[in-house]
Amino acid sequence: MIKFNDNQAQLPLGFKASGVCANIKRKDKLDLALFYSEKKAKAACLFTTNTLPAAPIILCREYLRRVKFFYAIIANSGNANCFTSKAGLKDSLDMSKVISELLGVHKEAVLVASTGVIGKRLPIEKIIAAAPVLVKSLAKDGIKLAKKAILTTDTLSKACTVKFKLDGKLITICGIAKGSGMIAPNMATMFSFIFTDAEIESKVLNSALKKAVGVSFNCITVDACMSTNDMVAVLANGEAKNKIISNKHGLRLFEDALNLVCLDLAKKIVKDAEGATKFITITVGEAKDYSQAKKAALAVANSNLFKTAVYGQNPNFGRIVASVGSCGIDLKEEEIKIKVSSLRKKEINVLVLLGKGKSSATVYTSDLTPEYIKINAAYN
Amino acid sequence: MIKFNDNQAQLPLGFKASGVCANIKRKDKLDLALFYSEKKAKAACLFTTNTLPAAPIILCREYLRRVKFFYAIIANSGNANCFTSKAGLKDSLDMSKVISELLGVHKEAVLVASTGVIGKRLPIEKIIAAAPVLVKSLAKDGIKLAKKAILTTDTLSKACTVKFKLDGKLITICGIAKGSGMIAPNMATMFSFIFTDAEIESKVLNSALKKAVGVSFNCITVDACMSTNDMVAVLANGEAKNKIISNKHGLRLFEDALNLVCLDLAKKIVKDAEGATKFITITVGEAKDYSQAKKAALAVANSNLFKTAVYGQNPNFGRIVASVGSCGIDLKEEEIKIKVSSLRKKEINVLVLLGKGKSSATVYTSDLTPEYIKINAAYN
Repeated sequence: MIKFNDNQAQLPLGFKASGVCANIKRKDKLDLALFYSEKKAKAACLFTTNTLPAAPIILCREYLRRVKFFYAIIANSGNANCFTSKAGLKDSLDMSKVISELLGVHKEAVLVASTGVIGKRLPIEKIIAAAPVLVKSLAKDGIKLAKKAILTTDTLSKACTVKFKLDGKLITICGIAKGSGMIAPNMATMFSFIFTDAEIESKVLNSALKKAVGVSFNCITVDACMSTNDMVAVLANGEAKNKIISNKHGLRLFEDALNLVCLDLAKKIVKDAEGATKFITITVGEAKDYSQAKKAALAVANSNLFKTAVYGQNPNFGRIVASVGSCGIDLKEEEIKIKVSSLRKKEINVLVLLGKGKSSATVYTSDLTPEYIKINAAYN
Repeated sequence: MIKFNDNQAQLPLGFKASGVCANIKRKDKLDLALFYSEKKAKAACLFTTNTLPAAPIILCREYLRRVKFFYAIIANSGNANCFTSKAGLKDSLDMSKVISELLGVHKEAVLVASTGVIGKRLPIEKIIAAAPVLVKSLAKDGIKLAKKAILTTDTLSKACTVKFKLDGKLITICGIAKGSGMIAPNMATMFSFIFTDAEIESKVLNSALKKAVGVSFNCITVDACMSTNDMVAVLANGEAKNKIISNKHGLRLFEDALNLVCLDLAKKIVKDAEGATKFITITVGEAKDYSQAKKAALAVANSNLFKTAVYGQNPNFGRIVASVGSCGIDLKEEEIKIKVSSLRKKEINVLVLLGKGKSSATVYTSDLTPEYIKINAAYN
């Protein structure tokens, strides 16, 4: 049985966190977070598929190639450290270095994440200056500040915790996320940092994360804009002392729990989408295969016209037809069925049946509103 | 030498047009247009690539397979006759029939176009009732009403005329267009009807139109939403009595003139984009090939975040980087150069150099504004 604690960030055994204001953002806001495992942890990470990724993404990929165990993730908001060339890469490196020295671990054991404005040099001196306090204030409860320090245009912090028993041992998975705009699949402008005390094989952790992200963070879209900085990372430190989770032991339960965390956080991102007034669930059924279903569902989810119609509570279902037809799938008009729930409610369900097969996919999106434009016209 | 008459719709020899109010739209507005060539004309047509095309598109494709010469195009606004199943196809057929009977030509000689709301049955009885007046009022000058009768959310009618001499004969190409929202390449929610008195080989006319559309109507985007009803049609009736234009004679000049017409109309569509306050020209250079350049240029042009930044006159160039990197092209950050003209002006130029080769592509788009959302939240 999996116990789900909504909106709760309860770090598993052996984890601590902290969040401070390093003055990276203009206002006196939290903007620097640290997540720390007292014991070395295995990591699984997924990154944006953008071919111009930010410096921290380049650095993390390199670290993941070099070492197998990690102790920390340092993350800042307010500046994405992207399109900042070699100087930016050096800044990310310095971020991991300063923390690794304070923690007494190898620099490669400290993953780095940045989010915010693209194309501006990171104020690395501010981060270095804030690092000692950040490390000193590490605490079990620090996650409450840390989850706020990674936010940008988000109006709410996003967290959940699940617990389940395996071999009589209590295992905890705690996830936090940030993301509100520049949200598209593969992946969105988002972070999600997930911590677990489960003992689990590295390979199995990697494949479980891939699966979970495929049906959660990669099934949400706010504005079809793909970011340069997206990252989902899981740290697993084994402190629950369970018999190691492998393909043969406990995997199903772990996957269910991880899926629950990822899907909940993904939905929370869409619910907090920039300017959104509606949460829209789009299911495409009767598709030839999952990929066809997802393609059609995302075509609807990314249609500005569909999204403005939902905002206007205007049942202009022709726009659903037009978007399904625009994604290159061979379709017959007479085989298609569309069902839309009342647009007057806050949560909208769209069902599109293609009449082609038995597969289905569900994606999540928000409406497109004048407020989205207001936020993004001014953001810098 | 090609003479360009901006905003002028001057029908070539042998063409007439008319526009009336058939009460398809709610208000007392022009909504039904007829274009007529006294002599049989060759036709070249390009249609939306949407796999759920509207009934008139299905019908026109069928007519173009069946016959080689055409006399007329009937077009209505206010209703797209799309997703209307077999009844809709019958309505389109009846539209061509009523006109063909009044003109005394075969029904296949009358092409049909519809634009407006998707998914509602066409009020065919209103069109049949208006047909006699429509035919009776055909006149050289009728193009002035006709070009207004095809509009939907457009705030302006769009037209231009070019003239050039070949073999001492004056050849005219006159084009009109409609389109304002649901504009994406391949193709946009648009009509363009082009009339010429040139004598030209059918094959050559087809290939010239394809080329011209490739660098004009297929290089514009307003909201990346592909319509179900797009259509570009050229009628060529040979009344200029020039020596027939072929691969060996006069083609270059004809292509230049046709390109001029298509590009001008395409730009006019973007300039009249729903809610737009800016006209943005995006050129991607130093690409490996044209297709790579166009892909990158469209990725920028379709980025909601880039477009809101332009609306906000907010030089957030990171969004250009993020969108170029999101389209799957293999890029190196240090090879990319970006140049953007002042965002305070009405016309904005963006240049992105990829450092990959010698090809370039230019596309045109508008900013994304609260007014776009207002228009589309209410449209029905």
